[in-house]
Amino acid sequence: MNMSLGRGARERLVVIGGDAAGMSAASQARRMRPSAELEIVAFERGRFSSYSACGIPYWVGGDVPDRDRLIARTPEEHRARGIDLRMRTEVLEIDVPGQRVRARDLETGAESWTSYDKLVIATGARPVRPELPGVDAPGVHGVQTLDDGQALLDTLAGTEGRRAVVVGAGYIGVEMAEALINRGYRVTVVNRGAEPMSTLDADMGRLVHRAMTGLGITMVDDAEVTAFRTGDDGRVSAVATADAEYPADVVVLGIGVRPQTSLARAAGLPLGDRQGLLTDLAMRVRGHENVFAGGDCVEVLDLVSGQQRHIALGTHANKHGQVIGTNAGGGYATFPGVVGTAVSKVCGLEIARTGLREKDARRAGLQYVTATVESTSRAGYYPGAGTMTVKMLAERRTGRLLGVQIVGGEGAAKRVDVAAVALTAGMTVERMTSLDLGYAPPFSPVWDPVLVAARKAVKAVAAAL
Amino acid sequence: MNMSLGRGARERLVVIGGDAAGMSAASQARRMRPSAELEIVAFERGRFSSYSACGIPYWVGGDVPDRDRLIARTPEEHRARGIDLRMRTEVLEIDVPGQRVRARDLETGAESWTSYDKLVIATGARPVRPELPGVDAPGVHGVQTLDDGQALLDTLAGTEGRRAVVVGAGYIGVEMAEALINRGYRVTVVNRGAEPMSTLDADMGRLVHRAMTGLGITMVDDAEVTAFRTGDDGRVSAVATADAEYPADVVVLGIGVRPQTSLARAAGLPLGDRQGLLTDLAMRVRGHENVFAGGDCVEVLDLVSGQQRHIALGTHANKHGQVIGTNAGGGYATFPGVVGTAVSKVCGLEIARTGLREKDARRAGLQYVTATVESTSRAGYYPGAGTMTVKMLAERRTGRLLGVQIVGGEGAAKRVDVAAVALTAGMTVERMTSLDLGYAPPFSPVWDPVLVAARKAVKAVAAAL
Repeated sequence: MNMSLGRGARERLVVIGGDAAGMSAASQARRMRPSAELEIVAFERGRFSSYSACGIPYWVGGDVPDRDRLIARTPEEHRARGIDLRMRTEVLEIDVPGQRVRARDLETGAESWTSYDKLVIATGARPVRPELPGVDAPGVHGVQTLDDGQALLDTLAGTEGRRAVVVGAGYIGVEMAEALINRGYRVTVVNRGAEPMSTLDADMGRLVHRAMTGLGITMVDDAEVTAFRTGDDGRVSAVATADAEYPADVVVLGIGVRPQTSLARAAGLPLGDRQGLLTDLAMRVRGHENVFAGGDCVEVLDLVSGQQRHIALGTHANKHGQVIGTNAGGGYATFPGVVGTAVSKVCGLEIARTGLREKDARRAGLQYVTATVESTSRAGYYPGAGTMTVKMLAERRTGRLLGVQIVGGEGAAKRVDVAAVALTAGMTVERMTSLDLGYAPPFSPVWDPVLVAARKAVKAVAAAL
Repeated sequence: MNMSLGRGARERLVVIGGDAAGMSAASQARRMRPSAELEIVAFERGRFSSYSACGIPYWVGGDVPDRDRLIARTPEEHRARGIDLRMRTEVLEIDVPGQRVRARDLETGAESWTSYDKLVIATGARPVRPELPGVDAPGVHGVQTLDDGQALLDTLAGTEGRRAVVVGAGYIGVEMAEALINRGYRVTVVNRGAEPMSTLDADMGRLVHRAMTGLGITMVDDAEVTAFRTGDDGRVSAVATADAEYPADVVVLGIGVRPQTSLARAAGLPLGDRQGLLTDLAMRVRGHENVFAGGDCVEVLDLVSGQQRHIALGTHANKHGQVIGTNAGGGYATFPGVVGTAVSKVCGLEIARTGLREKDARRAGLQYVTATVESTSRAGYYPGAGTMTVKMLAERRTGRLLGVQIVGGEGAAKRVDVAAVALTAGMTVERMTSLDLGYAPPFSPVWDPVLVAARKAVKAVAAAL
């Protein structure tokens, strides 16, 4: 039965997933078309809607005092805007030819089909849980959802020991290591690579390594976890590698996330190499006029390498939602792609990257030169000037900007935005040297650090002609 | 006599002006070519070389404790690099056909001619001194040079009264008003316009007005100074307008600067409507293969309006010098132009602008829409999030970005750089909405304030189609 029969001109938009991408899409579609024209039904299997997953480490670390502050909009607020948001309701199946989804109320167990005219898939990502002995033991935590964060805080509150092991040293791993140090834990980070933050080149990651050990975090590099040991109570007691065991009262997994696309896969929708849904520029699932997808469950086009990537980041999810809602509401908008910008504040350092790392450039078949400089965030004579290291990649011969990485003190991270826009515009590093950036002693030396790097990159390009 | 005869292949580069543009040019030319190939002679009539004029308000205000910290490179350091920098030596005449300059040693009074193969004119700007009664009285100060700053500090040290009047409310006027408040003065600002910071539209300037009065600064708006009154000792005692007199123990002039181009004018070199030297993109004076000019004495191309402008700013002077030195040294570089970016930190506010104000757009023949939003510097839940107001101008119909103004708390000003690069690239506000800017809770809401403004500007463009 296709329930769209008999509903006249009123269309139904179904949204799977009640977080950033899904609810942005629903909200924007509602702004475009009133309830009389467009019914919107959204399913969320968890207990929270529209929250900032990026804020979880700050909540765990104590900088953000209260979980509810991470919630941008409650289910009640969404419903007040004419969005039928059904919490604790999990979608189990998408019937693409039949234009309907099957959902289960997790409280009652009741299942039912809901038909759609347009569908939005915003199922997000799930943290990688390695298939190792003991990974499911109490005390081993991922930190992807607010529920995860609450579970971790409950463990911390109920555990006397103060030894924490963080597995993985990407953004989440490093942020969680710092959060646990702030809570008075002795923290060991077990990292597969030689340096933390593999989103940076190793020479820049080394600066983060130094800051982490400076905070008292124990770094175990080049180490692969082989098992999670448990004690007599069944709880986690240690993390084992090939060479050693690290006692642990609590373990946090920070080894990345993957697109949550099992529903989409079962429905026969197109997935990329990273298991993310593939969409066109209007965020429609390729080959499916009435199905949109966005947020952490899709792959996006990297405008610098020309390749598809998976990047789980709230700012992209919000933009996707905005585009989807506009298109689903009868308007027109596109998401052209990303340049791979990410910023982070950890262990007293600001860390930023955009564009390609050295290995990304090689993978994309690009030849490049690099330039690394040290500069300051303010005029040298102005109080509070902090130092920063800026690394820049430029294409060999053409001099086109390929990427920038920055590690430093206050005022370092957001400078990467200049490079993000320059990458989007396809600028050369030579053109960048004359960019008209804001200059005043409290904000910058006369040559902004990004321009100092560009000047050095120009020389490197000339030397490699 | 042409002194280049008999010097064989060794060329002489003569530089007029020993501050940012001139000494950057000299230093870069020296990097390009050794002393055996290129002799470099630089003339500076003042006592200081290569200093940060932009830092003077912070020195006067006490944030920078020591004058010498504003000096990037001393005359001795320049000489150690093979630049024959002659201090306290004023160039009185440029003989363009004869390729020589006449200079006077201000200590001895001796005059002599020096020939050149290539000439750099970097004579800077001079503060506007209105031709009003009493303007030359002791106690009335401009603040363009280090010497000016020292003279003002000497006046402050030697004066018991604590009443200061600042004439003009541009960057320098507002910065000096704050510096004097910080030194314990009662400060009155007499301003010709309705709002301070005429580099902003009035609706944005109003926010600065509020902050200034909040600091206890008395603002006299829409007021034209008619005279400077003097007391029995001949020193300034008050500032008069048509309506009132404002008692003053010290007066600071902050009513702008003009290109210092009397030498160039006398030599018959081409000047623009704002009396600045006109150059090509390689910073050669138009029509003169061997004469370069840069810094505060030239006009620059505004890439947004397509018109010539005069902008006195250290960061441009340094870039000009870099380009001139490269070209004078036999290399190739250009300065494509500016987009009009300026940032400032005054009275607890960060202030930024780039591109066109409303009146600039009208003057350039451009039709536009505006969008103004309030947003925050960090995620709302992250500690220390400050608010900011962002105003954006976009071209009618095309949606091309025309300008951005930002007034707000910490983290506001340097966000303007994103717009500066977008202007340089000719981006539309619609394309800006999907810019991949750095996002993390300590640095930005999921929608960066500049992108929030872009979203609103997109709607304004659509509404004005």
